[in-house]
Amino acid sequence: MNGKEDATLMEPYGHGGDLWTASGRFDIAPGEWLDYSANINPLGPPPQALAALRDGLAAIVNYPDPGHRELKRLLADTLKVAEEELLIGNGAAECMALALAGLGVRKAGVIAPCFSEYAQLAADYGAEVRTVVAKEENGFRANADELEELLEEVDLLFVGHPNNPTGMTYSLEQLREIVRLAARSSAYVAVDEAFIDFIPAEERATLLPELRDYPHVLLIRSMTKFYAIPGLRLGYTVAAPALIARMARKQVTWSVNGLALLAGQACLQPELADYEARTRELIATERAFLRKEIGDRLGWRTWSGEANFLLVRTSEAWTAADLQGALGPRGILVRSCARYEGLTERDIRIAVRGRADNERLMSALANIDRRRREEGR
Amino acid sequence: MNGKEDATLMEPYGHGGDLWTASGRFDIAPGEWLDYSANINPLGPPPQALAALRDGLAAIVNYPDPGHRELKRLLADTLKVAEEELLIGNGAAECMALALAGLGVRKAGVIAPCFSEYAQLAADYGAEVRTVVAKEENGFRANADELEELLEEVDLLFVGHPNNPTGMTYSLEQLREIVRLAARSSAYVAVDEAFIDFIPAEERATLLPELRDYPHVLLIRSMTKFYAIPGLRLGYTVAAPALIARMARKQVTWSVNGLALLAGQACLQPELADYEARTRELIATERAFLRKEIGDRLGWRTWSGEANFLLVRTSEAWTAADLQGALGPRGILVRSCARYEGLTERDIRIAVRGRADNERLMSALANIDRRRREEGR
Repeated sequence: MNGKEDATLMEPYGHGGDLWTASGRFDIAPGEWLDYSANINPLGPPPQALAALRDGLAAIVNYPDPGHRELKRLLADTLKVAEEELLIGNGAAECMALALAGLGVRKAGVIAPCFSEYAQLAADYGAEVRTVVAKEENGFRANADELEELLEEVDLLFVGHPNNPTGMTYSLEQLREIVRLAARSSAYVAVDEAFIDFIPAEERATLLPELRDYPHVLLIRSMTKFYAIPGLRLGYTVAAPALIARMARKQVTWSVNGLALLAGQACLQPELADYEARTRELIATERAFLRKEIGDRLGWRTWSGEANFLLVRTSEAWTAADLQGALGPRGILVRSCARYEGLTERDIRIAVRGRADNERLMSALANIDRRRREEGR
Repeated sequence: MNGKEDATLMEPYGHGGDLWTASGRFDIAPGEWLDYSANINPLGPPPQALAALRDGLAAIVNYPDPGHRELKRLLADTLKVAEEELLIGNGAAECMALALAGLGVRKAGVIAPCFSEYAQLAADYGAEVRTVVAKEENGFRANADELEELLEEVDLLFVGHPNNPTGMTYSLEQLREIVRLAARSSAYVAVDEAFIDFIPAEERATLLPELRDYPHVLLIRSMTKFYAIPGLRLGYTVAAPALIARMARKQVTWSVNGLALLAGQACLQPELADYEARTRELIATERAFLRKEIGDRLGWRTWSGEANFLLVRTSEAWTAADLQGALGPRGILVRSCARYEGLTERDIRIAVRGRADNERLMSALANIDRRRREEGR
């Protein structure tokens, strides 16, 4: 959905990372923000990808490969799947749209709180949206009975794993149970694994190795968050060839641009193993640092999550909007979660960034919170 | 449509410029082709756009502006329309898809021979396609009575102007007549002006200045052909705000990537006037040169057209597929038009390129044609 909904929000387009709206409200240029509202690898793009883009810039004079052949070949190799099981998308968001359009989804299920695009895209593509709210006291996981009822009603269920904005993941057993229930109700399951690369391989629960047992399951992934190239747009879907073919029929020719393909190819080279390991280590360390600091210095609640972001509940002295207003003049942008079903107006989401940035964030938060407590006295 | 249809064609995805398929068939790398099959400004991207991309490459770490605000502002200024009358698309192809999806088109009309994507996208989006064939003897323009009948049947008519692959344009009076007939039948008209920038402003017939009189007309344009950046994907639609809003609802968030926006902004700067003038002059000169050479040296027929390409009918010694097979080992790629309704298996389309390239093409054509005539004796 690309229409402006509410001009008073910092997220009028429904997403974080909107530096243009933030700059319209505070006297800070788009490039100057310390952006905690978008969940991007703080290491920045791999130097190999930037070099490939610089060297390959002249190739924009050619149309992109409409068959995404080289990237598919590399991705099939990396993931140990067949090329026919892959669809390359103009971001994970396009993959979701193609799933809805290609599979003819009339009723889509979501587990709130979750990525707003699931429901928004479903509505835009003419599908009804059914929601179950995953309760906080249940660790933001859906109750099995409610999920079973939901799956009986819908054609496709979106499952965020790790889920945005809670960071919550399912165990392999839970994922298997969901797809088993879905099979029984003839529903598709689209597991949104956009953030799964941030989890170390040995701790990662994914249906990928057993996907051939599930002809009704799609795994949707993003290459732009982990490799820090969201401006280029690049995502992919792994699913049975029959589903991939139905999605591809709805994809506009050349939907994926040539530089995204080039960067994606550069990111799949074996020499990136070190960058990948450093990313996962940094995220784990800094996520723990932020959780501890937020608890110790502010007394605010956070949830354990496995992604490169944290869901944070402020003290009662704040709303998310207040906090955005107080951080804005300091050039810091956080994501309000006040509009997520199942969350509260005190909830925000912050990205996990590098130590210097995280210290700057914590210092700003501690300062504005102390001032507010002093004023409140 | 993104699925492979016929692996024996040089255009298995239905379009020219597919260097990957060509390289799979001949021992020539994708970057080494002399590509006459895609219609791209032979001057290459404006240096200002390349510089903007090089300088702005680091910004791929941010999401693109989901509102395309800066590019819309510049484009509104340039075209003298309101920002609400503009939709920025991931190439002109996405604009066409959004018109079909957003306006709920059930029956789409096309005037053959024309850009294959009109019918392909319509079919992919579940619309029936009705075709009138514009006869060669009528200069590839549709007969008025047939057009009137077609408009009574369809929800939306695609009109290529200049038309691909014939290069044919309509007069302003003809365009007005088409949209008048469409209004009477409550049909939308999508005028595909992807190549109109190649026509000098003073010779250009476009409904743009009077578009507010036509709430049922969309102008779809491309920035990637004239500015030679097809790898980046960038197009736009001008139409009444109500139509734009309906199209925007179907657009996936961040569909247009950040570098495309950046390049588009660089291309709309006033200092590009010289590049634009040189482009138009070069195309007019070289189009005339190619027509004359093809007539004089080969005796093949061409049609007068106003775009940066030429429709060519070979002598009876050739088919388009033969010619592609003979040019391939020489590293030259042309577009077969054998599959276009209303054309013949002897028809090809060639881009208009610079003089050195055109001489190389003519020399290759003259050589292979002489050899074939000698063998035929």
